[in-house]
Amino acid sequence: MAADTRNIKLVVAYEGTNYSGWQRQRNVPTVQEAIENALEQVVGCFIKVQGASRTDAGVHAEGQVACFATDSPIPAEAFAWVLSRRLPPDIVIRSSHPVSPAFHASRDAARKTYIYRIYTGPTRDVLDFRRRCPIPYDLDVHAMNAAAAVMLGTHDFLAFASAKDDRSDSVRTVSLARVDRPSAHEIRFQIAADRFLYKMVRNIVGTLVEIGRGRWPAPRTALILASRDRTKAGPTAAPNGLCLLNVEYPHFSRPPLDTSHPDRDI
Amino acid sequence: MAADTRNIKLVVAYEGTNYSGWQRQRNVPTVQEAIENALEQVVGCFIKVQGASRTDAGVHAEGQVACFATDSPIPAEAFAWVLSRRLPPDIVIRSSHPVSPAFHASRDAARKTYIYRIYTGPTRDVLDFRRRCPIPYDLDVHAMNAAAAVMLGTHDFLAFASAKDDRSDSVRTVSLARVDRPSAHEIRFQIAADRFLYKMVRNIVGTLVEIGRGRWPAPRTALILASRDRTKAGPTAAPNGLCLLNVEYPHFSRPPLDTSHPDRDI
Repeated sequence: MAADTRNIKLVVAYEGTNYSGWQRQRNVPTVQEAIENALEQVVGCFIKVQGASRTDAGVHAEGQVACFATDSPIPAEAFAWVLSRRLPPDIVIRSSHPVSPAFHASRDAARKTYIYRIYTGPTRDVLDFRRRCPIPYDLDVHAMNAAAAVMLGTHDFLAFASAKDDRSDSVRTVSLARVDRPSAHEIRFQIAADRFLYKMVRNIVGTLVEIGRGRWPAPRTALILASRDRTKAGPTAAPNGLCLLNVEYPHFSRPPLDTSHPDRDI
Repeated sequence: MAADTRNIKLVVAYEGTNYSGWQRQRNVPTVQEAIENALEQVVGCFIKVQGASRTDAGVHAEGQVACFATDSPIPAEAFAWVLSRRLPPDIVIRSSHPVSPAFHASRDAARKTYIYRIYTGPTRDVLDFRRRCPIPYDLDVHAMNAAAAVMLGTHDFLAFASAKDDRSDSVRTVSLARVDRPSAHEIRFQIAADRFLYKMVRNIVGTLVEIGRGRWPAPRTALILASRDRTKAGPTAAPNGLCLLNVEYPHFSRPPLDTSHPDRDI
């Protein structure tokens, strides 16, 4: 990195409905591409923006973190609004700050927190259907929460990985795993870990739903986890219920939470 | 109405973003048309569906009420799901019930309640932008609530009517008018009245915002109301913050509220 090149950290929020996920791909809209296009308009050349988490198609974020290196004279804090002005209504840069040249959004992430929202109302969820997954069963929240607690600690999560995940190490440390019912027709699953395997949260949710609807007893969760067998877990839950809440870094303060949703207390 | 013709009451929810309002018009999608098309598929002939409130383009509903007459043998309660199955994801029939042949959704409505949501966060509202109006000012909620209280009671609301409203009688009775802040970045205005003038809620909100940002003192509200002068009120607030919460009828119980949003307490 040249002497006058700075590393800028972005906190990004998006509604993922209209995107094929974070990561740039050919011929489909992605969040990374949208931000890189906006950045190119601002600084006049293409700069790669590197994200902390490759969220899947349809998955949302309130606190995705990304970074890029630039020698542009634009003040670091101004990138938030100059980029946001050039982004569509479903993507915003919440903040931008200068960080150490060594900072890497993905590699340095110490903890990520996801939230998964399930809608259990009797009729179609027309007012929040992009961000909640409807489940047409009576769900036992206590059984689901007991099953979620099995995830806490350091385990090999291979049973909850996607078959497409080819990372050799599937040991992860989960520091938060809780299911509650913030309102009459919503069930919420919150999970934090050092890192996640591909589709890990959605595979855990699929398993919790099987337990919540009574098809499987809660203690089965521990057997599934211990099996390290990808065929034992429940189906992968739909992406639209999932949201990357924040990414934390050592020596970095936690990004400020948007408290505009009263159901968000983590 | 023939002897075997029944009158069916529907409670309808929709996200109005993709519709040019409730009322059927040529060449633009409307909620009424979507429901009439679904009904025609179900019963085999066109039947007019009559709504309680002609919500504007972009306005939402959690408890719009509509009714239609039919001699179809389909059980009244089944219309909710047979219609919902044929409706797009942003419209749902929450319930369907038989009502007196004399019931008229609009004429018989005794009270309607609207909610208007303002987003005041520092960055773009990417996660709820379809249902909240962003206002980029610091707003004084107490001043807004004091101004809202002026609306309570029976008054001539001509100052808050649209110039397009040609109804001769502009006297209405407001039974609820309250501004609060359910969470850090949201301000909410709730208003209930026997009937509303065209754009009355949005014109009141535009006035409350002028007061909340300090351009006008709160006592000016009473002067505007008393003036009966359409040029005195604030600008018409954007439609996307507005939602028809419910419609109440004498001798009819209040439609059950969706309690999935914890910020909804009315």
